[in-house]
Amino acid sequence: MVVLHAFQMLCPGCVRDGLPQAQRIHALFDPAEVAVVGLHTVFEHHDAMTSVSLRAFVHEYRLTFPIGIDAAADDGPVPQTMHAYGLRGTPSLILVDRRGLVRRHGFGAEEDLAVGAAIAALLGER
Amino acid sequence: MVVLHAFQMLCPGCVRDGLPQAQRIHALFDPAEVAVVGLHTVFEHHDAMTSVSLRAFVHEYRLTFPIGIDAAADDGPVPQTMHAYGLRGTPSLILVDRRGLVRRHGFGAEEDLAVGAAIAALLGER
Amino acid sequence: MVVLHAFQMLCPGCVRDGLPQAQRIHALFDPAEVAVVGLHTVFEHHDAMTSVSLRAFVHEYRLTFPIGIDAAADDGPVPQTMHAYGLRGTPSLILVDRRGLVRRHGFGAEEDLAVGAAIAALLGER
Amino acid sequence: MVVLHAFQMLCPGCVRDGLPQAQRIHALFDPAEVAVVGLHTVFEHHDAMTSVSLRAFVHEYRLTFPIGIDAAADDGPVPQTMHAYGLRGTPSLILVDRRGLVRRHGFGAEEDLAVGAAIAALLGER
Repeated sequence: MVVLHAFQMLCPGCVRDGLPQAQRIHALFDPAEVAVVGLHTVFEHHDAMTSVSLRAFVHEYRLTFPIGIDAAADDGPVPQTMHAYGLRGTPSLILVDRRGLVRRHGFGAEEDLAVGAAIAALLGER
Repeated sequence: MVVLHAFQMLCPGCVRDGLPQAQRIHALFDPAEVAVVGLHTVFEHHDAMTSVSLRAFVHEYRLTFPIGIDAAADDGPVPQTMHAYGLRGTPSLILVDRRGLVRRHGFGAEEDLAVGAAIAALLGER
Repeated sequence: MVVLHAFQMLCPGCVRDGLPQAQRIHALFDPAEVAVVGLHTVFEHHDAMTSVSLRAFVHEYRLTFPIGIDAAADDGPVPQTMHAYGLRGTPSLILVDRRGLVRRHGFGAEEDLAVGAAIAALLGER
Repeated sequence: MVVLHAFQMLCPGCVRDGLPQAQRIHALFDPAEVAVVGLHTVFEHHDAMTSVSLRAFVHEYRLTFPIGIDAAADDGPVPQTMHAYGLRGTPSLILVDRRGLVRRHGFGAEEDLAVGAAIAALLGER
């Protein structure tokens, strides 16, 4: 299954809550079972959060899971994947089951206890 | 299933980590699925942690799950259930599955992410 | 000068905020300049917070500053020093200057920054 | 007096410890007595921490004290004021007394209690 963490590098809630949680998920679960993927979904301050800045951010915060950059849209500030998934903002945590279906869609700080339980419940499905 | 949290009211790690975690488990899961039970396993300072003191402690810390008192042993400081379960100290977190089997045995502070996942994995079993 | 920390061993705010702050004050300042004194001002659950329980509490929480026990009053639950100083509850932090005058009277959690500044201001007085 | 906080926007210790402390100092003391000034001393990842990115960072983190940008040096990565003050890295906290003398030079996370006391000690000087 996939745990997709959508963030912006200058979003305080992402830095304080979301990204450390994603890193903890990455550390706890077997990567062959749970793939943690970050997605840099910039929808504001685009000039301030370029790929150059993101690279330094990832280095300084010692993030070790793979991180993609959401592609800009032609017609507005919200990038393409963020729009396609209907994300409301950052941080967002998306759980995708083994069949590729989005099963949980969280926005804002989420309890570790609940997230751990949600991941395990999906892992336990046949 | 049952989540058994063994603690002592004057154990700093219980007050700081274990009991708040037990309370969060109690708040998150459906009580019909996950029964959180506290167990006051006094194995030191017996005169300091009487049932009178425990009652005030439970009131002040707003603990809302049921709490039992481990019965003293005839032949030593370690109480009977603590001895029978082979607990190494406090805090301890024991997960008992639906069939009544002890499936996880934690000692000391444990990550919410891991505990949430362990509970959900047992809940998912047929 | 004297920093007087009034607490009850079963008061959650004392355990979480007040006592660790008193311990930090004790660790930071020269004891010849700043004497940190704890005062166990029991005004509720008297049977639950006896001197036997307090002794175990002090041991378990590794408190290293001297702690006195406020003497019970003849005519009510509030002990004598707590009454004499007009304390509103626990935790309370009282700053007494070099001349013996009470100069600051705090109730509840207080910012370290403000407490550190208040202590230093009194220390700087001629 | 002046409290000078030197930071980099992509320095985790600055975001977690230094900048919130500077903001608390700014909130606690009378601005007529204690002027808190931030200084963006970029000495690594220069392309990642431009003034455009800094502006968004300051907005997102709700920093309300004035912040200057340390001027780049001609001959190396360390900017001019950082070099002139002999700063070892970020976060750094510099206390300047009323006469304009640097009196305290801190590097890394510092206790609020100690910082509050140091500021008050300088304020109390004639």
